Amino acid sequence: MFSKVLVANRGEIAVRIIRSLKELGIQSVAIYSTEDRESLHVQLADEAVCVGTARPQDSYLNMKNILAAAVGTGAQAIHPGFGFLSENSRFVEMCEDCGITFIGPRSETIDLMGNKANAREQMQKSGVPVIPGSEGFLQDATEAKKVAKEVGFPILLKAAAGGGGKGIRRVDDIDSLTASFEEASREAKSAFGDGRMYLEKIMDNVKHIEVQIFCDQQGNSVYFPERDCSVQRGKQKMIEESPCSLISPEQRQHLGEIALRAANSIDYLNTGTIEFLMDQKHNFYFMEMNTRIQVEHTVTEMVTGIDLVKAQVKVAAGESLPFKQEDIHLEGVAIECRINAEDPSKNFFPSTGEVKYLYVPVGNLGMRMDTALYAGCNISPFYDSMIAKLIGLGHDRNEAIEKVKRLLDEMVISGITTNQKFYLSLLKDEEFKKGTITTDYVERVFLPEWKRRESNAAV
Amino acid sequence: MFSKVLVANRGEIAVRIIRSLKELGIQSVAIYSTEDRESLHVQLADEAVCVGTARPQDSYLNMKNILAAAVGTGAQAIHPGFGFLSENSRFVEMCEDCGITFIGPRSETIDLMGNKANAREQMQKSGVPVIPGSEGFLQDATEAKKVAKEVGFPILLKAAAGGGGKGIRRVDDIDSLTASFEEASREAKSAFGDGRMYLEKIMDNVKHIEVQIFCDQQGNSVYFPERDCSVQRGKQKMIEESPCSLISPEQRQHLGEIALRAANSIDYLNTGTIEFLMDQKHNFYFMEMNTRIQVEHTVTEMVTGIDLVKAQVKVAAGESLPFKQEDIHLEGVAIECRINAEDPSKNFFPSTGEVKYLYVPVGNLGMRMDTALYAGCNISPFYDSMIAKLIGLGHDRNEAIEKVKRLLDEMVISGITTNQKFYLSLLKDEEFKKGTITTDYVERVFLPEWKRRESNAAV
Repeated sequence: MFSKVLVANRGEIAVRIIRSLKELGIQSVAIYSTEDRESLHVQLADEAVCVGTARPQDSYLNMKNILAAAVGTGAQAIHPGFGFLSENSRFVEMCEDCGITFIGPRSETIDLMGNKANAREQMQKSGVPVIPGSEGFLQDATEAKKVAKEVGFPILLKAAAGGGGKGIRRVDDIDSLTASFEEASREAKSAFGDGRMYLEKIMDNVKHIEVQIFCDQQGNSVYFPERDCSVQRGKQKMIEESPCSLISPEQRQHLGEIALRAANSIDYLNTGTIEFLMDQKHNFYFMEMNTRIQVEHTVTEMVTGIDLVKAQVKVAAGESLPFKQEDIHLEGVAIECRINAEDPSKNFFPSTGEVKYLYVPVGNLGMRMDTALYAGCNISPFYDSMIAKLIGLGHDRNEAIEKVKRLLDEMVISGITTNQKFYLSLLKDEEFKKGTITTDYVERVFLPEWKRRESNAAV
Repeated sequence: MFSKVLVANRGEIAVRIIRSLKELGIQSVAIYSTEDRESLHVQLADEAVCVGTARPQDSYLNMKNILAAAVGTGAQAIHPGFGFLSENSRFVEMCEDCGITFIGPRSETIDLMGNKANAREQMQKSGVPVIPGSEGFLQDATEAKKVAKEVGFPILLKAAAGGGGKGIRRVDDIDSLTASFEEASREAKSAFGDGRMYLEKIMDNVKHIEVQIFCDQQGNSVYFPERDCSVQRGKQKMIEESPCSLISPEQRQHLGEIALRAANSIDYLNTGTIEFLMDQKHNFYFMEMNTRIQVEHTVTEMVTGIDLVKAQVKVAAGESLPFKQEDIHLEGVAIECRINAEDPSKNFFPSTGEVKYLYVPVGNLGMRMDTALYAGCNISPFYDSMIAKLIGLGHDRNEAIEKVKRLLDEMVISGITTNQKFYLSLLKDEEFKKGTITTDYVERVFLPEWKRRESNAAV
């Protein structure tokens, strides 16, 4: 087992990883930007190394400085968390060159799944259903037209090497397809040096359902009960839960087996998540794979009692998975709200500054709050606005909802604005209570209604 | 089900009960003394009624005012928490007279088990082994001598109506017995109006093991896995855990069945705990029964996933127990530390004043902190010094210990002094790590050694 691990991240996920390392008896090394000098992850780690200035490019994405910090402190492994370098295959290779273990999958796997068109092709080969669309890359706009006609509009044109919303176009009819194709391909070429495109049908009335899998070097692999992440705004997840209340135990097993087949077909290592769309008939379509721990791994931890970060570290160190498929049981329903420093009434504009007062309402059974907040800490404009995750575990979905409502109701974060109250409205929404929310519901239905109520209340 | 419940308590247990009521959708009424005007339980409850001035006798023990508050607010039931009126049979009767449900056992049961000599006799009748000693009450010092010779010295003379350390004498040899008997009996007569005495052998090298039971009005009853509360100072529990690491599954079942037999023999209602001493050969001896929820119910909740306060409310409302014996599984090991506002280096002298800064380190899996603390709250000299309970749940005892250590290490409570650091030493003690600590270990072995180290460090 490692005796020292560097955590190449910041904020709540860095704190969360450091805490698991502590409990494993492993020394932790934090990295930080000059902006984060007083951050909680720096205070909690056994050692901390400044790797650059505030801009992510200069610090948390600064591969050379991070590796120098790892080598300099004698860390044997690096946990990348999510975001930043977590899905950067070049960084994984650089770790290997330095003799440092990257806690995650192999660089080839990250590359393969990072290219969305390749991932799609790979999944089709393994017999995993994908969203109707092109097979492999599109030669040109003419081929795009042909495929689009087959699958039906609206469609999404996507850059194979895509990410961050670049090189993506929604196309509603055949007339605008050629122009959009060329525009998006040019954008992709300039952003990623790769103009290759593919297309997928835009599916309505779907849920975002994802399955986390875990594989070790000994050839063992398991899947976890699915998460429902359909409560989204602008493709950003807001609320995640596990399990999905609409999915039966038989479907759960079926879906888990599909996910495992996909993972095993690429000889996956460590943990990752396969994201699907589920239509109203409960057909599943592969969307993409995240080759890292995700924000919402916490709800899976709550319903299974398994610490996924500890397992990541163990598997990366060469140990076998510390659990078998039959050890993974649902012990209830967990729901998480992502608390962001932002103002919902100002179109979710980010809020920054000092947290002046903090009340953490955790207490009683089945409550969890993962955060790097403390009274007096500073929320910087340089980084992601997610500042806390509130999680409730109940025997059933209603109890979980009541728990999260209580957390939202009691929590106090003053000095900045958060989306705390927005969630209280959302949790009381009838569609949410039924568990039937689809991925477009918040933006299409809930948000306009919420804005109307808010502006009426303001008058 | 009740629509409104009054919580006749303060501090963390009042907060804990109010939170469960919230999650059940039941309105809560807090009571408070003038000293507690700004306490968290007052802030969190839906309504709050001042029932008197700071002295417990004037407020939290003021039965008339509390009942007036319940009647005035339309509460249909009263949850007494622990301490204060929780084991006062007269209060239970007064509740009945007002048509208010007391969330706990019947007044007769409280009376029966409150008289320690009667409880002992009752248990013997039900075939539950008791600590060697007298049968029923002692006629006089002469009978006391006879029994003491039979069971062997040292013995403990105890007032039948005892409580709060009054009317209790340790006797090491036969010469001092008569004087001690008369002194203790006089003291008991003046304190309780009842001078009747009994005696028990003082057992060395024993663990404090207790079993919580739960019975409903439909005749269903269950036991929970035992708790080990052997880490004590001056008969006060400091650390509690569940299960006891020395007890096998077979013994667990055997002990649970003994406890259930005892509870059923007195037609017990709602939850209660039967306390045993366990000798080195794992023989169990009945000590006493607590006819209320206890401080340490939390570790049982953590290892079973069952909210015991919610179950108390449901059973008091006439519902059947929401779980069966076969639903109660151990899902790990839980350990709790009672955080007191006191200074271990000044012989645990109570510390009071304003909490200036608070950092609550809950986050990650299996962490719980039950407390009424918030930054800016006041710790009053009028009430119990216990201000928080830190609980860690692990897959095994080691993981639970690491979790509690992390909580102790990260928690910040400034402005007052607590026993936080003392626990960090205790958790690193070899005897504690082995799980073999007996009830006298802290005072006999650990504390003298700890004081020596502290005074050396101070030099």
